[in-house]
Amino acid sequence: MLDTSRIKALTFDVFGTVVDYRSTIIKEGNQLNELKGLQVDWAKFADAWRGSYRPNMNHVMSGEFPWMNLDSLHRMALVALLKEFEVENLTDKEIEHLNRVWHRLEPWGDTVPGLNRLKQKFTICTLSNGNVSLLANMAKHSSLPWDVIFSPEVIKTYKPDPAVYRMAIKLLDLEPDEVIMIAAHQHDLQAAKKIGMKTAYVLRPLEYGYENIPNLVPEVSYDVVARDIVDLAQQLGV
Amino acid sequence: MLDTSRIKALTFDVFGTVVDYRSTIIKEGNQLNELKGLQVDWAKFADAWRGSYRPNMNHVMSGEFPWMNLDSLHRMALVALLKEFEVENLTDKEIEHLNRVWHRLEPWGDTVPGLNRLKQKFTICTLSNGNVSLLANMAKHSSLPWDVIFSPEVIKTYKPDPAVYRMAIKLLDLEPDEVIMIAAHQHDLQAAKKIGMKTAYVLRPLEYGYENIPNLVPEVSYDVVARDIVDLAQQLGV
Repeated sequence: MLDTSRIKALTFDVFGTVVDYRSTIIKEGNQLNELKGLQVDWAKFADAWRGSYRPNMNHVMSGEFPWMNLDSLHRMALVALLKEFEVENLTDKEIEHLNRVWHRLEPWGDTVPGLNRLKQKFTICTLSNGNVSLLANMAKHSSLPWDVIFSPEVIKTYKPDPAVYRMAIKLLDLEPDEVIMIAAHQHDLQAAKKIGMKTAYVLRPLEYGYENIPNLVPEVSYDVVARDIVDLAQQLGV
Repeated sequence: MLDTSRIKALTFDVFGTVVDYRSTIIKEGNQLNELKGLQVDWAKFADAWRGSYRPNMNHVMSGEFPWMNLDSLHRMALVALLKEFEVENLTDKEIEHLNRVWHRLEPWGDTVPGLNRLKQKFTICTLSNGNVSLLANMAKHSSLPWDVIFSPEVIKTYKPDPAVYRMAIKLLDLEPDEVIMIAAHQHDLQAAKKIGMKTAYVLRPLEYGYENIPNLVPEVSYDVVARDIVDLAQQLGV
């Protein structure tokens, strides 16, 4: 069991770890189908939309694209996907509203009770590739009780750039081993581990839906492996 | 009365506006007098400490000093003041603890109820010259329910540099007139007004103690003048 006596703060990945983006997009998309008489398969749409995020982000990181925050990356992908899925009758305002579904993502059932418990003992922070306004709006929409919203938007880069993890640690005025990075994604944890942070791996087998259970086997060892965020609180002694 | 239909977010000055730094320093200082057998006049000490902040900050802004965050500016002033007040028997750890009294500042009585009301309708943010860890620790200590902690530490400058106000507005993805700057200090409000923000002037006649009531007369017009933060909530229709 991890000795938590040195731990002061927890930094959380958000998409997939804290919120269930896929279900929220499907839910809002199905409402849009009804409203606009569309036939879109929103599970496929959600997967394609999320799938477009990493390659587009890589274009930004390589300098091939200029700096764009996540809202802009989502918007660029959305416009292309609407064409691909043959959705033609949305107004600009409706497209903008749809793009901001990422500001309205809903938490996994364990998230809010788990965060509220953890907040009693630790400083709880986002460390997500989302932009600040996205993370702030989502927190208000879904009652996520963050103490601090950290976003790499302020230094114009993205995880897993080590600069992102270092920024949070420096602004918290802590040492890397006083902070636990929490994520459902192993590349994120491994980047945090590399700079000396503690790591907690949260299992989210349904991130990609019932038909796409990912391989959750830990590739390396993490300080904590937790079933969900309530279990994480339990294991951290809160 | 201000039309609040366009207002999305509120950015707050913190020291003096939200928290009563002077009383907190006097209270903790008097405890230190007892503990260490000191005779320090902590009201004078608090005034001198706060007074040292602006000239030191100006040295940073002019480039005469290298970048230092507010904790470092406070520490530099503290070490000089301990000498001036002939306090010689504090350990390094005790000096560091005293320096971090700024992380433990207590709110004015109206602050927490007022912020909780405002948070129901608006995104409430700090926009203080305090560093991020100072503001985050203070929020936890004094139950300040911020949605977002903005600090100019991330861009290495200080208010009233217009870059600070612009940073917050950009990260909120808003227009200047969708945000109200709230402060007890007119130079802060005037800098915000200059870039197009709305302004609310909160009267804090006791910021400098009962013996030092400041001239509170508005030098220019503000969108709101409020007795305190509960009154502000009332006037903003929450």
